Amino acid sequence: MSKPKILILGGGYGGIMSAVRLQKELGSDEAEITLVNKHNYHYQTTWLHENAAGTLHHDKTRIMIDNIIDMNKVNFVQDTVKEIKKDEKLVILDNQELTYDYLIIALGSDPETFGIQGLKENAFSIRSINSVRKIREHIDYSFARYNNEGQPDELITIVVGGAGFTGIEFVGELADRVPELCREYDIPREKVRIVNIEAAPTVLPGFDEELVEYAINNLERRGVEFLVSTPIKECNEDGVILANGEEIKAATIVWTGGVRGNHLVEEAGFETMRGRVKVDKDLRMPGFDYIFVAGDCALIIDEEANRPYPPTAQIAIQQAYTIGRNIKALMNGGKLEEFKPDIKGTVASLGKGEAIGKVGNKKLFGATASAMKKVIDNRYLFLLGGVPMVIKKGKLKLF
Amino acid sequence: MSKPKILILGGGYGGIMSAVRLQKELGSDEAEITLVNKHNYHYQTTWLHENAAGTLHHDKTRIMIDNIIDMNKVNFVQDTVKEIKKDEKLVILDNQELTYDYLIIALGSDPETFGIQGLKENAFSIRSINSVRKIREHIDYSFARYNNEGQPDELITIVVGGAGFTGIEFVGELADRVPELCREYDIPREKVRIVNIEAAPTVLPGFDEELVEYAINNLERRGVEFLVSTPIKECNEDGVILANGEEIKAATIVWTGGVRGNHLVEEAGFETMRGRVKVDKDLRMPGFDYIFVAGDCALIIDEEANRPYPPTAQIAIQQAYTIGRNIKALMNGGKLEEFKPDIKGTVASLGKGEAIGKVGNKKLFGATASAMKKVIDNRYLFLLGGVPMVIKKGKLKLF
Repeated sequence: MSKPKILILGGGYGGIMSAVRLQKELGSDEAEITLVNKHNYHYQTTWLHENAAGTLHHDKTRIMIDNIIDMNKVNFVQDTVKEIKKDEKLVILDNQELTYDYLIIALGSDPETFGIQGLKENAFSIRSINSVRKIREHIDYSFARYNNEGQPDELITIVVGGAGFTGIEFVGELADRVPELCREYDIPREKVRIVNIEAAPTVLPGFDEELVEYAINNLERRGVEFLVSTPIKECNEDGVILANGEEIKAATIVWTGGVRGNHLVEEAGFETMRGRVKVDKDLRMPGFDYIFVAGDCALIIDEEANRPYPPTAQIAIQQAYTIGRNIKALMNGGKLEEFKPDIKGTVASLGKGEAIGKVGNKKLFGATASAMKKVIDNRYLFLLGGVPMVIKKGKLKLF
Repeated sequence: MSKPKILILGGGYGGIMSAVRLQKELGSDEAEITLVNKHNYHYQTTWLHENAAGTLHHDKTRIMIDNIIDMNKVNFVQDTVKEIKKDEKLVILDNQELTYDYLIIALGSDPETFGIQGLKENAFSIRSINSVRKIREHIDYSFARYNNEGQPDELITIVVGGAGFTGIEFVGELADRVPELCREYDIPREKVRIVNIEAAPTVLPGFDEELVEYAINNLERRGVEFLVSTPIKECNEDGVILANGEEIKAATIVWTGGVRGNHLVEEAGFETMRGRVKVDKDLRMPGFDYIFVAGDCALIIDEEANRPYPPTAQIAIQQAYTIGRNIKALMNGGKLEEFKPDIKGTVASLGKGEAIGKVGNKKLFGATASAMKKVIDNRYLFLLGGVPMVIKKGKLKLF
């Protein structure tokens, strides 16, 4: 009469929130819940670009897992997933193997480099606490070298590949950070270049045109250069080579051009599209009644628009609620519910006090949009750990 | 009836203090005083190791020149000296040429690498604001890379070449800084190595034995490793190779093994010993009645000990007083005075609240020595700019 084992892989938005929901939905005598994560902390992926730019410390972005989950109800295993053996109901970690009755795959994303040569080797990506503090320190170090090494332009040129959500939010933070770096290292601001390169004909493809125009004007005014309709052909140690043959020398290249599902999912033999599983309506893996998928690894179709929803934090969090209830239903022989995303709105930050966004049909600009962004961020912290978590990690302006 | 031109080369201890003294000794109708310096700021060379370690911000160490000298009495030229043409009474700067009637050479030092292969190319040195903020950021960046790049030991190994004054003070600061870096980048402290390598059979050669023992015990307890009687044979991109053939891999190598006088002095055709001019007793250049030398470029013999005084800030400052009075005497046909260093004491800091030193025959340890060090530092600021300067830049503990 052993309790059913629920195994959650990954402590990002989908995974940690699944753990939080399951510990709430189920009594500790009903199931044995295990969460596996590489680090002993969860982090807010949507804040990482601020840590990378150096405008927010990474300790604000991460939350110790034992501050979120009840360690009496959930086993936490700090380890790295190496392989999912779907037919053996087994997961291989670096240091042990785990079996399960129910599995939640929430392993997040890998960067999608679209086969651009040298990108993987020479560009940074905004994907973890480790990666973003490295970006921050790389930029600092490059600026510190500038006056020691004959002031070569490339040391203070930052190329950001991709003008999607992360790319735009990152250059917005850089526009705030660069003047501080210039003061710190005695460099004239006008010498520094922040170049945002996008293959599509516009920044923030698919976003409202008026909002996009606001964003471009705002960022250009603050010293960001945009190159749209400009695919990157190659990335090397010195910089990037564009499809038109032009070379931009840059010590710092950050790729934000896209993500795909974690490679472990396709390596396990599941059917994926760019690493994402087109899950059933109840968020289960097709053909596997006891495996759920959340977050970046799950592909959900927006039937009205007939295209996939972008994999956002918002959707991952909502999926965790559905998964929590559906596992409970499975265990108790109840009926599983369908997942329906409830898109409350989308806000892109452009830096301190500046943002653009849409909530319902309402467009938001500047300070209003920025305030809304903070509301969204704080709401997540509230779902995660109630008011104490908002106080501890929230972006609050108390005075 | 034009006023005599006094030209000061260099804004370090000797140069800036000469300017301060001359503007006090002479009326503005008596001479035209010009100070040439590469930067628009003076800095305290004796604090640079703290900036390099990251325990003190470099803005605390530097002082804007227009905050020190009276711009109505002294012309300040921000430029780099390229050549001293001694026979034409001419100095060539990057952007202009200057003539003089009286010249003060206070151009500071160059690192002395004793012919160790690869040292110049691969080791950092603690010599300017630019160089120390680069060291600080290089260490930060190396620590930030550690968890991204498979945790190779060399990224968190810091080799300090030379256990003289600067070397010992620097490893003392590193011992304070490393635990902070470990917290910042999630690295266990015991993985980090701080290795101080010295060719001589002891650290702080020539210093009191009891004090040296105190220093070694203190620093070893705080995680510094010492290798004495260990010459470095070679320095390369990966680390250092010792004379005994052993290799120590290290991402950061800082050379503090010695300094020599500025290369421009010997290039001008003056007779030097390791770049230093054995000046006359009144601090003039032998054979040149109108040229004075101060600081690292001047060699002063301690006749009792029959060896040169180490070129310290203390001596450079005292020389500026003598030079100020002697130039006044020369202009007025008075008698020039002899320079006699008044060595008040020597204190080496070992980090926060820890130091060793000797004042007269009294040995100082720990907190007492550390307090004395601050007194010395604040006294210099007082000489430079009175009480306001001490308040602005001093190391004060007001509460």
